[in-house]
Amino acid sequence: VKIRIDRKSPTPIYLQIAGSLRETILAGGLPAGRKLPPSRRLAGSLGVNRSTVVQAYDLLWSEGLLESRVGSGTVVRAPSTANDAELVEQEVRELGRVIGRSDVISLAGGLPSPDLYPLETLGRIASEVLSTGGGELLQWCEAAGYPPLRNLFAGQIPGVSPKEILVLPGSTQGLYLLSRALLEPGDAVVVESPTYLGALHVFGAAGARILGVPVDEQGMRIDMLDSLLGRARPKLIYTQPSYHNPSGFSLPLERRRALLDLACRHRVPVVEDDAYSRLVYEGEDLPSLKALDTHDHVIYLSTFTKTLCPGLRIGFLAAPAPVIERLAPEKYLIDLFTNTLAQAVIFEFLHRGHLEAHLARVREEYRRRRDVLSAALRESCPQLEFGVPGGGYFIWARLPRGVRARDLLREALGEGVSFMFGDVFYPDGRGQDRIRLSFPSQTPGNLEDGARRLGAALRRLAKKKRKGKTASDEEIALRPVL
Amino acid sequence: VKIRIDRKSPTPIYLQIAGSLRETILAGGLPAGRKLPPSRRLAGSLGVNRSTVVQAYDLLWSEGLLESRVGSGTVVRAPSTANDAELVEQEVRELGRVIGRSDVISLAGGLPSPDLYPLETLGRIASEVLSTGGGELLQWCEAAGYPPLRNLFAGQIPGVSPKEILVLPGSTQGLYLLSRALLEPGDAVVVESPTYLGALHVFGAAGARILGVPVDEQGMRIDMLDSLLGRARPKLIYTQPSYHNPSGFSLPLERRRALLDLACRHRVPVVEDDAYSRLVYEGEDLPSLKALDTHDHVIYLSTFTKTLCPGLRIGFLAAPAPVIERLAPEKYLIDLFTNTLAQAVIFEFLHRGHLEAHLARVREEYRRRRDVLSAALRESCPQLEFGVPGGGYFIWARLPRGVRARDLLREALGEGVSFMFGDVFYPDGRGQDRIRLSFPSQTPGNLEDGARRLGAALRRLAKKKRKGKTASDEEIALRPVL
Repeated sequence: VKIRIDRKSPTPIYLQIAGSLRETILAGGLPAGRKLPPSRRLAGSLGVNRSTVVQAYDLLWSEGLLESRVGSGTVVRAPSTANDAELVEQEVRELGRVIGRSDVISLAGGLPSPDLYPLETLGRIASEVLSTGGGELLQWCEAAGYPPLRNLFAGQIPGVSPKEILVLPGSTQGLYLLSRALLEPGDAVVVESPTYLGALHVFGAAGARILGVPVDEQGMRIDMLDSLLGRARPKLIYTQPSYHNPSGFSLPLERRRALLDLACRHRVPVVEDDAYSRLVYEGEDLPSLKALDTHDHVIYLSTFTKTLCPGLRIGFLAAPAPVIERLAPEKYLIDLFTNTLAQAVIFEFLHRGHLEAHLARVREEYRRRRDVLSAALRESCPQLEFGVPGGGYFIWARLPRGVRARDLLREALGEGVSFMFGDVFYPDGRGQDRIRLSFPSQTPGNLEDGARRLGAALRRLAKKKRKGKTASDEEIALRPVL
Repeated sequence: VKIRIDRKSPTPIYLQIAGSLRETILAGGLPAGRKLPPSRRLAGSLGVNRSTVVQAYDLLWSEGLLESRVGSGTVVRAPSTANDAELVEQEVRELGRVIGRSDVISLAGGLPSPDLYPLETLGRIASEVLSTGGGELLQWCEAAGYPPLRNLFAGQIPGVSPKEILVLPGSTQGLYLLSRALLEPGDAVVVESPTYLGALHVFGAAGARILGVPVDEQGMRIDMLDSLLGRARPKLIYTQPSYHNPSGFSLPLERRRALLDLACRHRVPVVEDDAYSRLVYEGEDLPSLKALDTHDHVIYLSTFTKTLCPGLRIGFLAAPAPVIERLAPEKYLIDLFTNTLAQAVIFEFLHRGHLEAHLARVREEYRRRRDVLSAALRESCPQLEFGVPGGGYFIWARLPRGVRARDLLREALGEGVSFMFGDVFYPDGRGQDRIRLSFPSQTPGNLEDGARRLGAALRRLAKKKRKGKTASDEEIALRPVL
């Protein structure tokens, strides 16, 4: 690889190095899997500081062009197929089929617990709104949503008016509308790495370049954001500050403020996806980015999928009125308006205070399930490394060295337990040593059983490895099973 | 305008003429409103048959580049703004505000009658499915729809299997998904002229070239379709064969067969939008194109918006499985899946036979309202020319010579009645002498009042014209009122 450096150019040296490498990789001059020289060696041969090369590698890594492999350093990454919506939908559907098997305990899907759904209350409200709301309720509605519900949602966020609310059939449609309105193919989008799978699908389908910022136990590494925003000039930053999916971590107040400051400074809008903030098991409630936002810089997404149930398909988006006015016409083309029966049912459910009662109930139960799963994993799977999240749905665990998540899943399905393998949550194929375990939708007994089965799968895989049957021998068979 | 003809070229002469004119118009060489030479004169000066020039003019007319004006022959048409989804959504919203005024009798919106909605039955079913369906009902659902509902829909069309069904929140989403999957900007789409407003919006937003085929009392002029399909090579034909919106006409059996034959011969898929076929007031039920289709050539769209109510947001698409497999992943990005409460409610409503009972009731009532409005229009507005439709929602009337629909609407709003002006239903700005009157959502008393008010508006407008206050003096003021 030839890397040309022009010391007289106003372009920083690390950008010149990254530019040469990027060009070569995209032109096919460095195939997937090819090892790059260690940073120290390349720095020596170019006559630059080692940190300059590290910066260049970091940039290419965040663009998904490089990956780090244990034992083989930095290598060129194989192009991702995650952008292919068709493949992804198929994979999700097939996974759904497996996790739906009655003999498999699913820790895979991020779903609430159906046995806790307030069905009687919802049923009573549905029949009441139909008889009292009358025919007008099932008549036409404006694309932005049922006015009483827009008022109610606006009232939940300081400084937000009903004009700034768009009711949606789940927050997914918000991501889709934003990608249609704000993104052109090739535009950069910054996400946490790992991040929500559905966001990767939607941004990927829009042809965005998805740049990941690593997370630690306090969420997004804000210290890495400044230079990335300056270099990549992204069209938006997508973040889940509270009980992040899949990692479970939350951004502390200082990082929330720092994120907003950086976003304002670089004039990049922040899309805050807030599915889990109400599911807090200990510690304090933190203000949303939207509540902290004094510069109209945050587009806020909320959903009832995780707090109540997915099937009603209600969420909302809060953003400055000009954004709503850009999104509503596209929504009008997509589905005219959101189901008014569901909008009215959610309105009454909230208006009568049922959500708070329901949250109190599920918080207690989910906290218990989290504790049961954590304890059972410590007992049955001591090989796993994980933290206990203070809220949300997920335990995010690191596998023992050399164990790959997809190999483990095959063993686990044999034992009768499932989970999500980590790499689907990364924009760049990393995370093969990670698994996501979801605790809300299983009974405590099943969670204990699931952990035992997972432990057995881990032992079986280790045994096979010792016998020399490496996982990759069987890798080809995995796809149809999944 | 220079028109060059090369008699040795394999390109037919009329295409050469049309090509020269098209190029000149698009380059701005012929401004909007400029009169073209009469066909006989142009034919003489070019030394070709008059029919060759007529063919060229017809082609450009169907592309929306020309229009015919009474008294001034063929002129260049002003570019349409109908493709601008934002403008359109705003116009619809503003119109909605006006037609929602309690002092205005709306004959504008194509909505069913809320006082006939089976609210009690729907409410009872909603609370029942929630209590018997249990939590699983509100859990995740696959993108293609709730399986029992897919089975039921498949059973309604001969030869269609559940795999060939995609459940949607209204048929609008079907048009959107098809435009995303099948259309690139610049692709041609053939529609009836006039046609459903929403289809013009969706195809326009996709950047399609929308080519209109005129309709007569028997629906689409199939005799004009053959050469158009050959010339324009469209990606799809969009049609409403039964009780067409806005014209009310239905395609007889022979034309249905001829349409399918042509579509197969030219290998163009047919999108059949069937919102009104169950609302038949006299005459026989005709088979849908989908039922006649033996070559998997028809993509069928159905909705409950017109037969039941808009607010539940349920429709479906039936198409060969490979089409479904292309659309489902895009739907997954847009909203994951359609509201399962609404899907289950519709399923039970159909399964228990309530739809047939409801249809019997609304058919009788809507027939009565159609008859009341027709009779009242004949009495109060003898200037209008219209046919009485055998089903559906609309009376499609031609205004007296020289009266423009938008001018009449301003007068009509002053009198307290509204309707839809005709040009919004045309891909090319024609229809300014047409209005659409919707009868299902008003009581017979209101229909009679509405007709009287419309008669008064017609008289007032005629009086103003006689006084020399022409409509165009006030035209600029119309937009904000609308």
